[in-house]
Amino acid sequence: MTDLRRDLLFDRCVLVAEHRGERPNDFRRFIAAGAPTSDPSSEDCPFCAGHESQTPPAVYEKVDSTGAWRVRVVPNRYPAVLAESAGLAAGVHEVIIESPRHIRRSSDLSVSELADVLTAYRDRLRHWRCHGQFRYGLAFKNVGAAGGATLVHLHSQLMVLSEIPPAVSRELDQLERYQQDSGRCASCDRIATERDCQERVIAEDKGFVAFCPFASLQAFEIWLLPTEHQPSFEDLRDESLHAGLASALHESLTRVERLLPEAGYNVILHTAPWGRSVSGVHWRIEIRPRLSKLAGLELGTGIHINHVPPERAARQLKGV
Amino acid sequence: MTDLRRDLLFDRCVLVAEHRGERPNDFRRFIAAGAPTSDPSSEDCPFCAGHESQTPPAVYEKVDSTGAWRVRVVPNRYPAVLAESAGLAAGVHEVIIESPRHIRRSSDLSVSELADVLTAYRDRLRHWRCHGQFRYGLAFKNVGAAGGATLVHLHSQLMVLSEIPPAVSRELDQLERYQQDSGRCASCDRIATERDCQERVIAEDKGFVAFCPFASLQAFEIWLLPTEHQPSFEDLRDESLHAGLASALHESLTRVERLLPEAGYNVILHTAPWGRSVSGVHWRIEIRPRLSKLAGLELGTGIHINHVPPERAARQLKGV
Repeated sequence: MTDLRRDLLFDRCVLVAEHRGERPNDFRRFIAAGAPTSDPSSEDCPFCAGHESQTPPAVYEKVDSTGAWRVRVVPNRYPAVLAESAGLAAGVHEVIIESPRHIRRSSDLSVSELADVLTAYRDRLRHWRCHGQFRYGLAFKNVGAAGGATLVHLHSQLMVLSEIPPAVSRELDQLERYQQDSGRCASCDRIATERDCQERVIAEDKGFVAFCPFASLQAFEIWLLPTEHQPSFEDLRDESLHAGLASALHESLTRVERLLPEAGYNVILHTAPWGRSVSGVHWRIEIRPRLSKLAGLELGTGIHINHVPPERAARQLKGV
Repeated sequence: MTDLRRDLLFDRCVLVAEHRGERPNDFRRFIAAGAPTSDPSSEDCPFCAGHESQTPPAVYEKVDSTGAWRVRVVPNRYPAVLAESAGLAAGVHEVIIESPRHIRRSSDLSVSELADVLTAYRDRLRHWRCHGQFRYGLAFKNVGAAGGATLVHLHSQLMVLSEIPPAVSRELDQLERYQQDSGRCASCDRIATERDCQERVIAEDKGFVAFCPFASLQAFEIWLLPTEHQPSFEDLRDESLHAGLASALHESLTRVERLLPEAGYNVILHTAPWGRSVSGVHWRIEIRPRLSKLAGLELGTGIHINHVPPERAARQLKGV
């Protein structure tokens, strides 16, 4: 069972999930074997085609013309939240297996395969939005040991929560206030500034823009947003997802993986929460490479250190 | 030069410090050599006795009866903040070298050596508090690659800032409000609760108590506090530091290192800021083992996952 513990005075929010200590870990095996460059084999990978019995049954599948799956969504076997948990810990934790092949980098997917993954994000978020019990959904992907992945086979996660996390709520309040004061969306304004100065823009095409944000917390961080105002990722239409987003995200991830071939990273999709005013929200995808550890300063003060100015990061990412 | 970039809308605060990319890194060598268990030698360690010329000149030294140093404080050669920087990035970044010997674990120090390190924390914080230009001081220690250390030789860092970090400010506001509403210090109340229920207490002796906090963000996290109300660590008296704190902290760190011999960790000293009301503040030392990575969920929502309930963590830590 999972227990959500909040400490409002010291601004702490933690899911205590004892059973997650039992998860398999490909990287722990790396470390034990002292061979950090070799890849755990697909033989005992629970996410590979043919090993479907090693995961809970699928709740969603995208199949090709032969009936074989291309993307598969399963409940997380070691969930951090559970629908039957009490109060704040009630939620859903799903795994989006991005390919039947034993691949470990996003650039090993084709653009069309990535479009299928993004469709799974969208459709599962839509499903849980309609469900009515939950207030917030987050899709994210941890790649590499430094990114916090425990299995190498490329996968994302979907976490659906019965309330909006405090840190997210704080951001939403600020965005709503900006909207009320100025009559404009803060992200739309940011996009306009970035497109105007061009110093941090990496790519813009077919309704999407990718740039390194001015206050990048991580070196080579990228934000990807639709140029037209859209609060909810769930409302993204098929043609925009296929013709625009999939290729824009594929390009950004490929640039990161080429420039930083050994780096772990996180991909985080922020979409508007459910059941509250969201006119000032604009969905975005963050790519956060993990070149340095979050250490005492970050944990103690929330202040990050970034040794690559985002202007230089954008130049280098554009150059590969 | 360092540049502090704040994004108030998206609640981000980052020191952009390009020169820090040039730091030496013992752990990078580990990784390159594929030999994560061997120790980088002391031959080219800039913190070892005899290598004083490899660091900037000391700003503080504790010497023994023969004149040899036991603890040495030097300006950080790769500072994240600089006194001459503009505005918010103005600050001081010092390194506290905890021993002339090439040791890498806190339990390699004697209690008396650890008392010297704590005295250096206190005296340097006092120095900068008196200086008048700064508003906030943080002492912290990163141990092991997972803890974010770049050099193995045991050392701490002191960061002094010209303003209070936003996340710290938020906590202070909450503590002050609690104090105003209840007339009591929130930390004193927490200590009373923990001593009363005993479920999470690890040790209490000579004016200090160590426990695993109810909302532990990390598995095996420990908080160490003085049982008597004291806002500022800088006001700690010699006898209390030597007879109480040094042995309590030594015991806690030794328990962590015995139970989790391979784990990296962070030690963070939170003391009251300078030049604002602090009656609701109570200094504390946090020990935060880094058994799992902060990944997409933590970065995206601020919600942590902890797979060891603090009640079990306390039992295990008491058992070693």
